[in-house]
Parts: sequence; C-alpha cells; structure tokens
Amino acid sequence: MFQLNDRLRNDTLEIGSLELSLLLLMNDRSLPWVILVPAREGIKEIDELSADDRMLLIEEIAWASQVIRHLYHPDKINIGALGNLVPQLHVHVIGRFVSDRAWPGPIWGTGPIQPYESDEVDKVMAQMRTALKGRAK
Amino acid sequence: MFQLNDRLRNDTLEIGSLELSLLLLMNDRSLPWVILVPAREGIKEIDELSADDRMLLIEEIAWASQVIRHLYHPDKINIGALGNLVPQLHVHVIGRFVSDRAWPGPIWGTGPIQPYESDEVDKVMAQMRTALKGRAK
Repeated sequence: MFQLNDRLRNDTLEIGSLELSLLLLMNDRSLPWVILVPAREGIKEIDELSADDRMLLIEEIAWASQVIRHLYHPDKINIGALGNLVPQLHVHVIGRFVSDRAWPGPIWGTGPIQPYESDEVDKVMAQMRTALKGRAK
Repeated sequence: MFQLNDRLRNDTLEIGSLELSLLLLMNDRSLPWVILVPAREGIKEIDELSADDRMLLIEEIAWASQVIRHLYHPDKINIGALGNLVPQLHVHVIGRFVSDRAWPGPIWGTGPIQPYESDEVDKVMAQMRTALKGRAK
C-alpha cells in the first residue's frame, strides 16, 4: 500500500490528489514549489513506473508547471527527480526567479527554508486547490 | 529550424538521435551523465512541448535511465530540467553514486568537471551508440 514518506510529509502541505500523484506544497514561502509523488508503492525511479503511469506523470508535471506560471510568473520552471535523500519517487516543480536565493544554481539543498505564515499558506493552498479542481481527477 | 545551443554543444559529445531528442554525453568522466535535447525549435519548458512530444520525452528519459543503470550500476538516477543558464529545453539523466563529488546534493553547478581521456571516451561513446542502436529511431 502506498504511504507518503515521512520526510516528504514533514516538509510539505498536502494540496490534494491528481490522477497519479499526490500534490504537495513545499513549506517554503520564498519560492512557488510543489512536489508530485506518484501514489505507487515501492517506486524509486521514473523508469520503474509503467508506461501508462509515466504518461500521467509527464502530463501532471506539465500541468503543475502551468499552474505555477499562471499564479507566480517565474523566470524559469525547474523540474527535478533526485531522491538522493528521500528514495520514494517524487518530482519537484519549482518556479525560479533571477532574484531567488540560489539563482542560477539548483535550489535543492540550499537554505534557509522559510516556512509560510498561517494566513499566507491559507491563501496559497486555496489557490492551488482551485487549480486542482479545474483538473478533474 | 532546431539548432543545438552552443554551450550544450561545447560541454558535450553527440551520441546520436532518438525519436524526439538529441542524445548528448556530458564531457565529465567522473559521472555517467547524458542530456536529452528535444529537437524542437524555441522550446524552453516541458509544458511547451506537444502532448505527443512529452510522451516521447518521458519514454526517452526512462530509456536513458535504464542504459545508465545497465552500464554503470549507480546508487540513484537523478533527472533534471533546469535551464537557468541554458534556456533551450534539455533534460539531464545522471547516474549518482554515494561516493561522488556532490552526494547527496545536486550535481549541477559543482565541479571541477573532469573531461574524458580520448581512449576512454571512445569506449563510452561506443557503448552508448550500441545502446542507441538497440532502440530503433
């Protein structure tokens, strides 16, 4: 049975579910950053997914990219599936800005993380859930 | 008309062409590292590709992951589409090792790059081209 990795759960807020993936919001107010976690047990790498699931994944990556672009107008989208620390397959979709803390380097492993304030996260989660409703599961 | 970005050309060796993407070998002997560049003009982000091209891309990512795993037995595959320095859409597929220079952090932006020796690169290119022949274009 699929269970979300504890570290992913601790670092994020759960927005909801897409057809394949859990959609998580990284709890870092400094960047628009979501994580897709295919809800399949025991998968560590993209090539371990079935071809059908890979098609769903790339469409969910494209959709998440568009949501972030529409809401935040970033300079670039960064996509990454690393998993060196958390082996459960998860794909980062991040809006990057020329002004952000790590530009033009990768954001992973840089800090400090700035957790959302409670009123702010309510607004972001509401926006993300509205976007998610627009994409029928 | 599609043209490979100059920086990508300078940093890599061209292995050949897949159905969608140019397949490049990053000229860094310290890690098995290939780059897929969808041969489509003016594309910067995955969601700018057509849905058909996205399906090809995710299958080419999975295939490249398997080639690297089969040849090098890495501890983890890292996939990334960043493009903060080179805007032309390109996807890194990298075999990572617990012993590599950046583990467990991302490899991008770390150095120094160690270019292949000429006899060594002949062997790697031959292996990669044999793998490529096994996947009919």
